[in-house]
Amino acid sequence: MPPIESTSPTFDTLAIVGVGLMGGSLALAAKQSGLAKRVIGLGRTQSKLDSAVELGILDAGTTSVAELAEAQFIVVCTPVDRIVADVQSVMNVVGDHAVVTDVGSVKQPVCDVLGTQFPRQFVGSHPLAGSEKGGFQHSEVDLYRGRKCVVTPLSDNSLQAVQVVEQFWTTLGMDVQCMSAEEHDRILAVTSHLPHVAAAALASLLTEHEAPFAATGFRDTTRVAHGEADLWTAILQQNSGHVGQEIGRLINELSQYKQALETNDAENLRSLLESGCAGRRLFESVFKNGRNAWTS
Amino acid sequence: MPPIESTSPTFDTLAIVGVGLMGGSLALAAKQSGLAKRVIGLGRTQSKLDSAVELGILDAGTTSVAELAEAQFIVVCTPVDRIVADVQSVMNVVGDHAVVTDVGSVKQPVCDVLGTQFPRQFVGSHPLAGSEKGGFQHSEVDLYRGRKCVVTPLSDNSLQAVQVVEQFWTTLGMDVQCMSAEEHDRILAVTSHLPHVAAAALASLLTEHEAPFAATGFRDTTRVAHGEADLWTAILQQNSGHVGQEIGRLINELSQYKQALETNDAENLRSLLESGCAGRRLFESVFKNGRNAWTS
Repeated sequence: MPPIESTSPTFDTLAIVGVGLMGGSLALAAKQSGLAKRVIGLGRTQSKLDSAVELGILDAGTTSVAELAEAQFIVVCTPVDRIVADVQSVMNVVGDHAVVTDVGSVKQPVCDVLGTQFPRQFVGSHPLAGSEKGGFQHSEVDLYRGRKCVVTPLSDNSLQAVQVVEQFWTTLGMDVQCMSAEEHDRILAVTSHLPHVAAAALASLLTEHEAPFAATGFRDTTRVAHGEADLWTAILQQNSGHVGQEIGRLINELSQYKQALETNDAENLRSLLESGCAGRRLFESVFKNGRNAWTS
Repeated sequence: MPPIESTSPTFDTLAIVGVGLMGGSLALAAKQSGLAKRVIGLGRTQSKLDSAVELGILDAGTTSVAELAEAQFIVVCTPVDRIVADVQSVMNVVGDHAVVTDVGSVKQPVCDVLGTQFPRQFVGSHPLAGSEKGGFQHSEVDLYRGRKCVVTPLSDNSLQAVQVVEQFWTTLGMDVQCMSAEEHDRILAVTSHLPHVAAAALASLLTEHEAPFAATGFRDTTRVAHGEADLWTAILQQNSGHVGQEIGRLINELSQYKQALETNDAENLRSLLESGCAGRRLFESVFKNGRNAWTS
């Protein structure tokens, strides 16, 4: 491992596995902040990697994991169902002191396997940043700055590896918070995965006949439903326990509305709506004042 | 009734009952388009009406319905559970040739009563316009322009009254579409009332512990949940049959997600998510190209 200065760690070579919006933006931010002298990207399509190099996002791009041998810090930015295999293949080629993290939005299945297998080298992360525009060509140098990053160490993890990962995100300007992978997945089920399911379920009910009468209420409530079905299938499956439970809670809440309407119970209906208002105000009080202005 | 020119009807006196955002914007637009020489507002608080006059939104403001006696066209902009009573009290004072409409977002309960009681004078409308900012002080002259307006005549309504109402909204630059009140309420249950219930139900699940980790996905999916509980209690109650049915469909859809997660059925999960994507794309295809860029 290279010498890490506490105020400004520097890696000779930072590797990004999976160069999309998240990976590309990370490459730009790492260079700008002086975190990395050289950023190499590992991908599946050489022509895309070449474009990322031409755009100045990467210093080099390769489809061969062997070329990551020199990297001291590796961030895996591939879909959640590919992270375990991608980290394992990276571990086959990098040195014993290299530290690896990921940016996946479900943590327990990934950290249970990798944190146990590589306790001195792998620590899971979830930077709560993103954008509706996918693809490295939309990379933004400030995508991560000012936003929250959850780091999810296992108790087996070496403190040093945890500190390197925390320091990495802090240097990029993120507000780092540590919690267990299980806690992360439970929280994100409510704040991100359930809203996605609700939006998609709602959007699927619209017919051609009704669509011309849908307005900004429908627009905002269903916005996230446009997310890639493959990515979200993997996310929901990886967090199936918590998401299933939260869907149950939402169904229960909706059933109360249905019953209040069927029994013409205005008081109950108002009380349900007020509790929705209160939840929304709670969100706004944190979201407006806080630094968590990211895209889930 | 004053002489109505087919291209530019003009009323000597237009009355607005309920001077909030909808009523105030209507007053501004009616003056600007030359639809009305004089706009009088009926409200409950004289000081607010005086402010609206000072701001140039109204020519006069009153708390006494008797002062609407001279109005030839009256638009009732009060909450849906007050429209019937407000129209009835207006009818007690206006002339036999005055035409009255409303802007409520549920039509059947209102039109069944009023269209039958006043077939030559009352025709229901729902201009699909609005804004997150309530109150007359946020009035916008262009709130209605370019947006859809549903007019819901009964078969008993006189053709002349229907034409006056249609012409009124058309002159304000709206895209007028006629349908039955029942059809309107069924459609709006899907496009507006169900999204509100879903957003409120979702928002109510958030706790203080989780709120700091909610992001733009949660923000957009729950945006409409901040709507006034009293207003929405009335809307949902007035459209309880259709909304209850749509909540049932949403619960059924969510149950399919839950089951697919519990049985680890990736194919079914992907297919559900794809049907959400398809619904969203359908919405976007109409919303982007069309003129229906309003706030529900």
